Amino acid sequence: MSQLYAPTLKEDPAEAELASHRLLLRAGMIRKTAAGLYSYLPLAWRSIAKIESVIRDEMEGIGAQEMMVPILTPAELWHESGRWDAYGPELMRISDRHGREFALGPTHEETFTDLVKNELRSYKQLPCTLYQIQDKFRDEMRPRFGLMRGREFIMKDAYSFSATQESLQECYEQEKAAYARIAERCGIYALPVVADSGQIGGDTSVEFMALADSGEAELVYCDCGFAADVEAAATKVPVTEGPGDGTLTKVHTPGLGTIEAVAEFFGFPENGTRKSLALVAEDGTNVVAIVPGDHELNEIKAGKLFGAYHLMTDEELELAGLHKGFIGPVDLPEGVRLVCDESLRESQSWTCGANEVDYHFTGARPGRDFEVDEWADLVSVKAGDPCPHCGAALKSARGIEISQVFQLGTKYSEAMGATFADEDGVERPFLMGCYGIGVSRTLAAVVEQHNDEHGISWPVCVAPYEVEVVPLAVNDDVVTPVAEKLVGELSAADLEVLLDDRKERPGVKFADADLIGIPYQVILGKRGVANGMAEVKARETGERFDVPLDEVASWLTERVVPARA
Amino acid sequence: MSQLYAPTLKEDPAEAELASHRLLLRAGMIRKTAAGLYSYLPLAWRSIAKIESVIRDEMEGIGAQEMMVPILTPAELWHESGRWDAYGPELMRISDRHGREFALGPTHEETFTDLVKNELRSYKQLPCTLYQIQDKFRDEMRPRFGLMRGREFIMKDAYSFSATQESLQECYEQEKAAYARIAERCGIYALPVVADSGQIGGDTSVEFMALADSGEAELVYCDCGFAADVEAAATKVPVTEGPGDGTLTKVHTPGLGTIEAVAEFFGFPENGTRKSLALVAEDGTNVVAIVPGDHELNEIKAGKLFGAYHLMTDEELELAGLHKGFIGPVDLPEGVRLVCDESLRESQSWTCGANEVDYHFTGARPGRDFEVDEWADLVSVKAGDPCPHCGAALKSARGIEISQVFQLGTKYSEAMGATFADEDGVERPFLMGCYGIGVSRTLAAVVEQHNDEHGISWPVCVAPYEVEVVPLAVNDDVVTPVAEKLVGELSAADLEVLLDDRKERPGVKFADADLIGIPYQVILGKRGVANGMAEVKARETGERFDVPLDEVASWLTERVVPARA
Repeated sequence: MSQLYAPTLKEDPAEAELASHRLLLRAGMIRKTAAGLYSYLPLAWRSIAKIESVIRDEMEGIGAQEMMVPILTPAELWHESGRWDAYGPELMRISDRHGREFALGPTHEETFTDLVKNELRSYKQLPCTLYQIQDKFRDEMRPRFGLMRGREFIMKDAYSFSATQESLQECYEQEKAAYARIAERCGIYALPVVADSGQIGGDTSVEFMALADSGEAELVYCDCGFAADVEAAATKVPVTEGPGDGTLTKVHTPGLGTIEAVAEFFGFPENGTRKSLALVAEDGTNVVAIVPGDHELNEIKAGKLFGAYHLMTDEELELAGLHKGFIGPVDLPEGVRLVCDESLRESQSWTCGANEVDYHFTGARPGRDFEVDEWADLVSVKAGDPCPHCGAALKSARGIEISQVFQLGTKYSEAMGATFADEDGVERPFLMGCYGIGVSRTLAAVVEQHNDEHGISWPVCVAPYEVEVVPLAVNDDVVTPVAEKLVGELSAADLEVLLDDRKERPGVKFADADLIGIPYQVILGKRGVANGMAEVKARETGERFDVPLDEVASWLTERVVPARA
Repeated sequence: MSQLYAPTLKEDPAEAELASHRLLLRAGMIRKTAAGLYSYLPLAWRSIAKIESVIRDEMEGIGAQEMMVPILTPAELWHESGRWDAYGPELMRISDRHGREFALGPTHEETFTDLVKNELRSYKQLPCTLYQIQDKFRDEMRPRFGLMRGREFIMKDAYSFSATQESLQECYEQEKAAYARIAERCGIYALPVVADSGQIGGDTSVEFMALADSGEAELVYCDCGFAADVEAAATKVPVTEGPGDGTLTKVHTPGLGTIEAVAEFFGFPENGTRKSLALVAEDGTNVVAIVPGDHELNEIKAGKLFGAYHLMTDEELELAGLHKGFIGPVDLPEGVRLVCDESLRESQSWTCGANEVDYHFTGARPGRDFEVDEWADLVSVKAGDPCPHCGAALKSARGIEISQVFQLGTKYSEAMGATFADEDGVERPFLMGCYGIGVSRTLAAVVEQHNDEHGISWPVCVAPYEVEVVPLAVNDDVVTPVAEKLVGELSAADLEVLLDDRKERPGVKFADADLIGIPYQVILGKRGVANGMAEVKARETGERFDVPLDEVASWLTERVVPARA
């Protein structure tokens, strides 16, 4: 440690909100060069190397081949795919000395598609999966959270080329399974979450989310293995019937323009009421959308149905003949389209606005009292809703996206004319998949899941070192030779050892050891050494063990080796 | 090989002049994305990984610590060092969405200096050497020769920070020794060459040159280990005395205005004559520079003495009172400074121009017949000159620069205010060294030194695979199971094996095997297999060995393992 370049900080850096950001800075593992640009100092780089090694191992296991394409990608390729214009300001662009334009690759669908074009010619050569681990560039509007959302970051990106949908499905499933193993082997508790595919496109995709309170994504999940982004989750929301005997009854509800107030007035759960939202669809249609009273209209789902819609302004409500707080399905003004959530289809007694100020209906029944134009999935699923797989109550959590698998289909191969000859000699576009892992973000996610008030607590699998030897006396006739001998023994036992040989007080050494978070600390005090004993502290649990000096190597080997990735 | 992404080419690509460029393309190892931008396909990437692994091993051996800084480096840092303006168009520049400028790092003196500034604070923490292996960017005017001169290339760059010149010298020597071992372990015959430091600056540097006819550098070297760029080499050039008895004698030499003609006229070797060049120094001084008749004035050395000098034009010669072809040291016009090469200092009888049209002197003697204003090293050393170390005749060769070590001194630390506290608490700028290896260029240099008319012939140490198994029959009841069993045995013996399982004719397989150049080919023919025999071909020598099938693994292990890096 007297030689190691790991400048630790005593104080929390002001700009760091997230634990991973704060602790990686404090532990001397990363440093900022500019907004969203970080250097990985030696300790962090050792952990990155371990993560990369797990990735390589799993990729080799499924027959993916590692290679490397340039970071500079010619604008021509981005024009072919249409993304030069579509990508927006996140794509970093540069001109060379001859004025030729390039993008700094944020992802490499174009480059890989162009690479295999005319070189993978026959279905016999398929499927083929190629990957690389490389710096990627995205000019984020607001880079933040340290390694979590940088402008230059390390990403493993893989691309599969298949002749058939079945083959693509198989590549996709293999990658997905490998990604689950990679997260686990890196010490991350992650859930595979069905997600939208976003910028990259494609039709089927899963994100692996490391659960963490600091995560940007909102998830629902179940112990059965189901997990979904709340924006994308679909389940049958249970609904209770409203008050009354099923007869349509108009009730005076003066000033009760909120779900909460209406539920309280009737002495009924909010779920027994119906929430009506008035909006204008992209095509100008006036729409009333109705969901169970205790759920929210999901913006993404609504967007898919209504395009770029907006909730009605007061003026638009007036024009449409609707009354804020008292909207409902019965007696809707003409020209208003009624769209109701699927979960309400079976419900026969709705409590809802009466389309008249200060009045609600109870006992409203679809088909009898009003006609529904369309039943659709409209709600945001939330904790407590039944799991769509097993029916148990869903839990909610926040997550960090560490990796994602996509089925791209022929999006890029068609746009770029990348084809192969099938069994009949007919040229067909490749069916492609793409698969990304945020390597640097994975490092940050590990820290988010493995830290406490004293610092980082690395799992063995990605720890920069496995053991730290902490002699409490330096240049001591007794302790120093013992420490050096022990380091030799541990190294000989193939353990990765860091020796704190600095002339610092024990308090400083203990604090730095806990901050840097090597999984096992071997503490050598004068008295212990005189008695032939070391104290071993497990960083994560804080447990301390008195171990005879000549057994330390075997004691640690027993614990460390099985915990390796 | 049926799965491997290595699309081989039957024909030589038109644009490829160099063997490495041509063969790496043909063997399906690299592909061009744009001028100076190459993808490394899986086979090449395996070799790159081996080179990197050798580098890491040697760096660990001398205590250098691996880390990683961003590729994007803020313009501010380049302004601090003064290189934003000085670097010219080779520095690729980019603006982010907020208009802030960055350079794509071509080298990272600024970033590393800025990194350690205020974090390496005391002499006790020094020396410290940090390094990374990373893509670098230089917008070459004329990128060419494949990996040899690209615009994006892989480089290992290291930076040492020392408190004293002795410590810098030690870091420098350690790196230099490691660089020599790295070249050797990668299978490259390279010479350490004393060189100018160029763009990066600094005062002491050595380039490691891989000898190859295709190299861009011109070298002189000696079996004793001495090597130098002809531009930088210095040695005592032997000179012979001219004709005559040492008496100053003016000789009529009508029309003999060249060294060749004068030497022929006197029946003397050119070395016995003196070559005089008239030039104007940067400060406007007229200079006559004299070198042995068979050597050339070295432009770099002359530049160091005279600044941005130029040879006199006819008009300038006339103004100075000098006569082209008949210039010499005796009776020089006033105001002309006389600078003579060191090697002539002992010579007492010069044959030289008489400063009069159609006349030469023989027997001119310095001190008696003319005064020399300055003796200096002026000549370009050439093959046959004596080695300055051992005196043997120097050889000449061309070389590829694969790596370089520099002593930067305080160039960057002073400019950027990066200081440490010395033993007396005084702030002093770091003494820095920087050390670079062209990783991708090393790959190309290996191919330049290891190829023949059939393809590449990888040395084991950096070969993509160590053994290729070539069954000559596919889906054959006898050969196929034997091939598969053998691949299993070789893998179990920890050899890196590639199986050519393609349904191709033997001729195609042989040609591809020689082209890709795996060091050992195990050829399995029907007849041989029936007799329990394999034929093993050593790619480099072409030797063939009949080896019993059950001995192939041990036979190969004996040869491959000791040849590993």
